[in-house]
Amino acid sequence: MTGMRVRDLGEQGLLKRLQSFCPVGVVGDDAALLKVTAGHTLVVTTDMLIDGVHFSERTTSAADAGWRAAAANLSDLAAMGARPIGITVGLGLPGDTAVAWVEGLYQGLSECLQPYQTPIVGGDICRSEGITVSITALGEVLPEQAIYRHQAQPGDVILVTGIHGASRAGLELLLHPEQGQALSPTDRQLLIRAHQRPQPRLDVIAALQALTTDLAPQMRLAGMDSSDGLADAVLQICRASRVGAVLERNLIPFPPSLTAWVDETTAIDWALYGGEDFELVLCLPRLAAQFLVTHLNGAIIGTITANPQVILNDLSGLYPPEVLSLSKGFQHYSP
Amino acid sequence: MTGMRVRDLGEQGLLKRLQSFCPVGVVGDDAALLKVTAGHTLVVTTDMLIDGVHFSERTTSAADAGWRAAAANLSDLAAMGARPIGITVGLGLPGDTAVAWVEGLYQGLSECLQPYQTPIVGGDICRSEGITVSITALGEVLPEQAIYRHQAQPGDVILVTGIHGASRAGLELLLHPEQGQALSPTDRQLLIRAHQRPQPRLDVIAALQALTTDLAPQMRLAGMDSSDGLADAVLQICRASRVGAVLERNLIPFPPSLTAWVDETTAIDWALYGGEDFELVLCLPRLAAQFLVTHLNGAIIGTITANPQVILNDLSGLYPPEVLSLSKGFQHYSP
Repeated sequence: MTGMRVRDLGEQGLLKRLQSFCPVGVVGDDAALLKVTAGHTLVVTTDMLIDGVHFSERTTSAADAGWRAAAANLSDLAAMGARPIGITVGLGLPGDTAVAWVEGLYQGLSECLQPYQTPIVGGDICRSEGITVSITALGEVLPEQAIYRHQAQPGDVILVTGIHGASRAGLELLLHPEQGQALSPTDRQLLIRAHQRPQPRLDVIAALQALTTDLAPQMRLAGMDSSDGLADAVLQICRASRVGAVLERNLIPFPPSLTAWVDETTAIDWALYGGEDFELVLCLPRLAAQFLVTHLNGAIIGTITANPQVILNDLSGLYPPEVLSLSKGFQHYSP
Repeated sequence: MTGMRVRDLGEQGLLKRLQSFCPVGVVGDDAALLKVTAGHTLVVTTDMLIDGVHFSERTTSAADAGWRAAAANLSDLAAMGARPIGITVGLGLPGDTAVAWVEGLYQGLSECLQPYQTPIVGGDICRSEGITVSITALGEVLPEQAIYRHQAQPGDVILVTGIHGASRAGLELLLHPEQGQALSPTDRQLLIRAHQRPQPRLDVIAALQALTTDLAPQMRLAGMDSSDGLADAVLQICRASRVGAVLERNLIPFPPSLTAWVDETTAIDWALYGGEDFELVLCLPRLAAQFLVTHLNGAIIGTITANPQVILNDLSGLYPPEVLSLSKGFQHYSP
């Protein structure tokens, strides 16, 4: 690597340089001021990303790392039904980090935030052994429109947005470029893109708005995002709601292109446990779900049950029913 | 070190254990909900603390590290005139970190937050090479009562709360216990305490409330906290306000006990450049300042000037006037 390093600029010099990514007048005091719309509740979420754990130079450019950090946090807000109003960025950086890398990170953050007019409102930088990115995202929601995990009820259907497993497949292609030779260049690029530039499903807010206006003014729904995998999301919702679920194996939407590359078991595995698709998993009455399916490019993949187990069912009868558990999911401290 | 390690519990297990420090019902979704009082503006500040840079096992217990992390963030809110409403905690932890250390950190955070009824509303934990603590503090302020750096005007006086240099002196005693033999055990303990358990000056909010009620409904004042040193605070305010200042050397309040240990030059040096006293530096008309001095245990140490330099003056004539600059202050990336 060539060019200027973080230690050449110092903390203050680097902060000054990064202010070009922040709205004028917001940065420069001990704290930033932000307006919350009257009647709305503040929504707060924090995520840490560590070099070598959540991203690596091999698979992630600085801009992609920034995009993914922003997307992960916006996805948490979407999962609460909240509109983003700003983020803060805490950076731990080794002194020999290239200034261009840090600017790339901010570029990626900004690109992901831009469609939602969400500003970077503050941050902190300090020296550390490895690169650490800590994002806190702030949003707002009308209290009666907030989405919680604990409100699923037996009889609800389970709706997932988008497709699952694409991010995991993209990571595989980045780590092992020799794989997936049967994929078309476009399909290959789409899978890699799904890993590098995931889209937070903030479109859920408008869809829910339309739903409550058209159909059900006092809608009850449960939900969360699928950042740690689709199985994890269903299991977390069921645990919080003290219910169970039956998922239909053949209704789980994975990227169709995968069939040319891996067997169906692997595709379903990536969809259930791959994680980082940043889609939403919503549990709600069937009629409302059918309305949302058309607005959110979603699919109904199962139902909530009183039996507290989460069961993966196979309508074709090829596979026996399987009880899902959190232990198969992604655990950061696993050996 | 003995006992359970972070890797034994895993990320989810550790988060569950730390939920006892969070208010019931706040944690458990993708994001936390927080109420902002009607008419108030949200205030946001982020600080990162790195093991070996901002604290070390030699001088800082886990509880003290937690206290200082909370105090630093509450101090930033105080500097904006804002009342705290919640904090989030992002933790990067090596797998061999003792669980007791993490619980100690949360204990210290809670102890510092408790007098202000400020909850820990969320967080994230992940594996990293060194210990990293990233705090985002949220507060609220009536927009017209926010304190900014850029509003100092020539003729204002400079008021500092409390005393400066105590934290730096306490650090010296922790690093070199053989020093300061002439100090009484009580004085020694007070200085160490100033370093380990600094008090954020959130009492400024009530004092300013009293001031605006009694004296000046439309008060203009500039201010920030002295976390990076008293000199840094004055220089930052002057730069933001495009003014200068004259500070009177013999009016700078340092701990009286220091005279039994170091010479006056060192004491003033620690007061100006030591940092981490987490006091406030306020610039405002003299009459209002005199009112605040009695309410905030403060001292008037100088005046704001149109001449953009910041000059350290000596009324006694022993020292020639000295021009202060940011370069002598604490720079995290300095060699």
